[in-house]
Amino acid sequence: MEIGFLGLGIMGKAMSINLLRHGFKVTVWNRTLSKCDELVEHGASIGETPAAVIKKCKYTIAMLSDPSAALSVIFDKDGVLEQISNGKGYIDMSTVDDDTSLKISEAIKAKGGDFLEAPVSGSKKPAEDGQLVILAAGDKALYDEVLPAFDVLGKKSFYLGEVGNGAKMKLVVNMIMGSMMNAFSEGLTLAERSGLNPATLLDVLDLGAISNAMFKMKGPTMLKNSYSPAFPLKHQQKDMRLALALGDENAVSMPVAAAANEVILFHNIFRCQKNQTNGQYFFSSNFQVNKDETVFFYLIFFLCLMTPP
Amino acid sequence: MEIGFLGLGIMGKAMSINLLRHGFKVTVWNRTLSKCDELVEHGASIGETPAAVIKKCKYTIAMLSDPSAALSVIFDKDGVLEQISNGKGYIDMSTVDDDTSLKISEAIKAKGGDFLEAPVSGSKKPAEDGQLVILAAGDKALYDEVLPAFDVLGKKSFYLGEVGNGAKMKLVVNMIMGSMMNAFSEGLTLAERSGLNPATLLDVLDLGAISNAMFKMKGPTMLKNSYSPAFPLKHQQKDMRLALALGDENAVSMPVAAAANEVILFHNIFRCQKNQTNGQYFFSSNFQVNKDETVFFYLIFFLCLMTPP
Amino acid sequence: MEIGFLGLGIMGKAMSINLLRHGFKVTVWNRTLSKCDELVEHGASIGETPAAVIKKCKYTIAMLSDPSAALSVIFDKDGVLEQISNGKGYIDMSTVDDDTSLKISEAIKAKGGDFLEAPVSGSKKPAEDGQLVILAAGDKALYDEVLPAFDVLGKKSFYLGEVGNGAKMKLVVNMIMGSMMNAFSEGLTLAERSGLNPATLLDVLDLGAISNAMFKMKGPTMLKNSYSPAFPLKHQQKDMRLALALGDENAVSMPVAAAANEVILFHNIFRCQKNQTNGQYFFSSNFQVNKDETVFFYLIFFLCLMTPP
Amino acid sequence: MEIGFLGLGIMGKAMSINLLRHGFKVTVWNRTLSKCDELVEHGASIGETPAAVIKKCKYTIAMLSDPSAALSVIFDKDGVLEQISNGKGYIDMSTVDDDTSLKISEAIKAKGGDFLEAPVSGSKKPAEDGQLVILAAGDKALYDEVLPAFDVLGKKSFYLGEVGNGAKMKLVVNMIMGSMMNAFSEGLTLAERSGLNPATLLDVLDLGAISNAMFKMKGPTMLKNSYSPAFPLKHQQKDMRLALALGDENAVSMPVAAAANEVILFHNIFRCQKNQTNGQYFFSSNFQVNKDETVFFYLIFFLCLMTPP
Repeated sequence: MEIGFLGLGIMGKAMSINLLRHGFKVTVWNRTLSKCDELVEHGASIGETPAAVIKKCKYTIAMLSDPSAALSVIFDKDGVLEQISNGKGYIDMSTVDDDTSLKISEAIKAKGGDFLEAPVSGSKKPAEDGQLVILAAGDKALYDEVLPAFDVLGKKSFYLGEVGNGAKMKLVVNMIMGSMMNAFSEGLTLAERSGLNPATLLDVLDLGAISNAMFKMKGPTMLKNSYSPAFPLKHQQKDMRLALALGDENAVSMPVAAAANEVILFHNIFRCQKNQTNGQYFFSSNFQVNKDETVFFYLIFFLCLMTPP
Repeated sequence: MEIGFLGLGIMGKAMSINLLRHGFKVTVWNRTLSKCDELVEHGASIGETPAAVIKKCKYTIAMLSDPSAALSVIFDKDGVLEQISNGKGYIDMSTVDDDTSLKISEAIKAKGGDFLEAPVSGSKKPAEDGQLVILAAGDKALYDEVLPAFDVLGKKSFYLGEVGNGAKMKLVVNMIMGSMMNAFSEGLTLAERSGLNPATLLDVLDLGAISNAMFKMKGPTMLKNSYSPAFPLKHQQKDMRLALALGDENAVSMPVAAAANEVILFHNIFRCQKNQTNGQYFFSSNFQVNKDETVFFYLIFFLCLMTPP
Repeated sequence: MEIGFLGLGIMGKAMSINLLRHGFKVTVWNRTLSKCDELVEHGASIGETPAAVIKKCKYTIAMLSDPSAALSVIFDKDGVLEQISNGKGYIDMSTVDDDTSLKISEAIKAKGGDFLEAPVSGSKKPAEDGQLVILAAGDKALYDEVLPAFDVLGKKSFYLGEVGNGAKMKLVVNMIMGSMMNAFSEGLTLAERSGLNPATLLDVLDLGAISNAMFKMKGPTMLKNSYSPAFPLKHQQKDMRLALALGDENAVSMPVAAAANEVILFHNIFRCQKNQTNGQYFFSSNFQVNKDETVFFYLIFFLCLMTPP
Repeated sequence: MEIGFLGLGIMGKAMSINLLRHGFKVTVWNRTLSKCDELVEHGASIGETPAAVIKKCKYTIAMLSDPSAALSVIFDKDGVLEQISNGKGYIDMSTVDDDTSLKISEAIKAKGGDFLEAPVSGSKKPAEDGQLVILAAGDKALYDEVLPAFDVLGKKSFYLGEVGNGAKMKLVVNMIMGSMMNAFSEGLTLAERSGLNPATLLDVLDLGAISNAMFKMKGPTMLKNSYSPAFPLKHQQKDMRLALALGDENAVSMPVAAAANEVILFHNIFRCQKNQTNGQYFFSSNFQVNKDETVFFYLIFFLCLMTPP
């Protein structure tokens, strides 16, 4: 099976290597073409432009950094639209919003192409191990055809119906996670300040029914105050906000998520202030968690400030 | 090692049998003495009164149904206080509030006895399997001495410092769980109402970093609307409220828990109303409301999980 | 001074009569032209189309029912754009959102015209009495020129800077009011359920520093449970939501407004359910629920106050 | 009419002078007896102890600084209980909590005396002008008998039923006010950060249906960032918390008040931080933060309004 692959960032590189390892023929393209060289060593061909990749391959996967990059490979000169046509399928696995997905879908379909949005859960490690979770939505026939590729890339893929549902599913999951991480932060803070050892709380939680990988992974680093502050927190706040907006549209009352959102927003404000004062406090490697996380890093931070160690 | 055991409810019975199986000599007492017979078959001796048990045994464990029962075995005629003295240890494993624990602790210590509060996580099954989680606080020396018994009763025991910390730790855990179950309910409702299949949401959650036993166990039944509404929800609301009060005392801002608490309170109100009007309201076919209501059925659930009945 | 006037609904009619009374020459247009006749009796001329009005008058005021009507008189055939030009000013006093205002502003300015958005606080009575509050934004020079008209129409007019600020100011005011009415409802419910007479609470409030016309007007009717539930509550919820979105954009944390928004949303849901099941639920004799529901009847109310019908 | 008066703080002094001016015979007592001298100039007699005052007068009013002072004049040596008896009435106008009121009530009644709790709204100025608002509860007959005194002290008095209702009514009012001041602060912040002039917002609010003395008085000073941070904020937070607890007891869901409470709590924490680190953080030039902080300065303010110092 021949597959085009647009975008060789951390995720795209791992995913395309995975496909090559499993016997797929892969034609890659990246904005900075030099990044393609390593893939060539693994057996990939190079396409000079997105259009060239589309022309050559029946199926093309895109894994781009953000909505503007996702739109750019479609609509710009030498972009996907110039070559997409009847019988060709385009699978966008980037994490983009609803609207971006719909815009791309409409453009592709207007040219006769088939389209799937297929955002993933999981970051670098799962991408390398083929352990992503794939949330696909759009043309069911295309989904069925590219299932062999999804089987290589992920441990599980879901077909969720119409375009937009992939993005929505991610919002719902992220919203639950955002509220949970806030609840977790509140609990750690409460433990600490009421005279309990928060490290013991982590142990107790880990033995109970709500034990989960996220608490396990982030709890200990939270207690160490060792975060890497690279991630733009605004992105996480945006996810919570979009989920709340989805609730507004569908008349769903979500007071817990709303409270969590305002907390994140508040810390965002402080973040700005922190930047001004060159403060070090937020950190971490896990992408998804990074977003969610800021909340509690800050809570932790002021906990530490507040409480005699 | 000889151990007294007061209270042979579901939990107490399982725990004392466990001790007998592992070679402890156990003298049991129960308000309804006939309940002791089964234990005798397993090799236990009987004490006619709490005082008699204390007199006979160096260490006595209590596992009673509620604060008033826990106070009664101490202060009533033929109670613990009549025989507790220097060199004797009393371990209360009932789930009681902070104040009750302190009252018992002070009375025991005034007589020269040693005291541990040691509430547990886990219900009947873990009690039978010796898989409880024990949250002990009080006299450290006593803790060290009865560790062999704790090792039999639980998969893990924690020493948490001064009396009251066991109750506090349970509150913190329950608060996190209460907020989480609210976040989960919001997510299920949002999924359903925005056109996603909530069963798929469960699958997606289960593959991610926040997968946990509670979501796994309760999610599917929530989607079937099969709840057993028997539990007095006020108890759960009280736990959230006590955690918030603990936050108030210690100047911890917990907006997510506060929002969750008000949701539970609101459904409480409606629940009452439903009872009055014999209404189908919350068990009607309207999915959303049922989902909202799940919040408290599942809060109920985890309370059951956590608290010996 | 000659002024064009587009839209003779309840508000527009009262406003144009007011202008005529104070000696302005007014040329009116209305979608249903027959409505212009009454104005002619007061001395107005008639314009056959929006374009005709613009052609004739240096300044034209519009007072239309909603964003789509506001856009329609601009962009449709025989619309404002066909005649607007250098030296002509267009003042839109309709209540529309930010985006609509900007769209109109850009179209007018592209043709060389000047533009003011100028939404008002106050409904029929203040419109008749020239007691509106005018929130103007856009071309400062135009504002200064039409001040004599504003002086007739309102008791006070504000120049708020760039286009969009009028709509924003209304959102902020409505948000504060929405939170206040929720706080008021909570207080009435708490009084009632904790054994106080809520009517006495109204008296006590009225003697204190937070006494205000809204509480005074709505309190007594709330206690009588006499609401007219005709208003589409979604509109109010939308205002709260837009204010929260404005907060999101500007990194302002507003937990109180967020909580209020979710309450309104929740009652919205129940309202729908009631409709489906034809239930008396919220209009039942149960005081508490009625009181809770008041939240939105009173949000409705203030929307009515604020928005020309 | 002869009246005893215990407590000559700012409030008590103004009140007893008022009574003297209106022809009442007043016997005063104060812990620091020298404070009685000024009252003697106005015609008062002195009682050497609370017991002496009670012995001399059929009716005695107390206006003390806090619950512990209120309890002390009752239960200490030479206290009220030593002389209170059948036919004597005791009116406690101090601001105390529910429990304190009940404790005093029970002690008085056990001795055969009559009791009223009668906390007031209004501070020094209204006390001097006889413009207090009196929230009385307890013995109705005693209320009717001392009405002439209440008429002199206040512009309005309410009889609220059983003891405890006076305290509850104050909690409800303070809760509404607390939420309102939070909503107001959010609105000011939102205005400022979204490019509006918050001073204009004040003007717009003042022309609308929610215009009130509190916004009018505090708005301008909030914009000037001139606060006097002297007040122990914990007291205000306690009022919100007690109101929420009252809601918990009575199954009233109050999400808006809960959100407001957590905001106050949060700023409390930061306030502590500032003190410890002598930081410019919250008093920095960053407008937003200052505005957020206003929340509690203004909560402070209304507490001052409400509570005799």
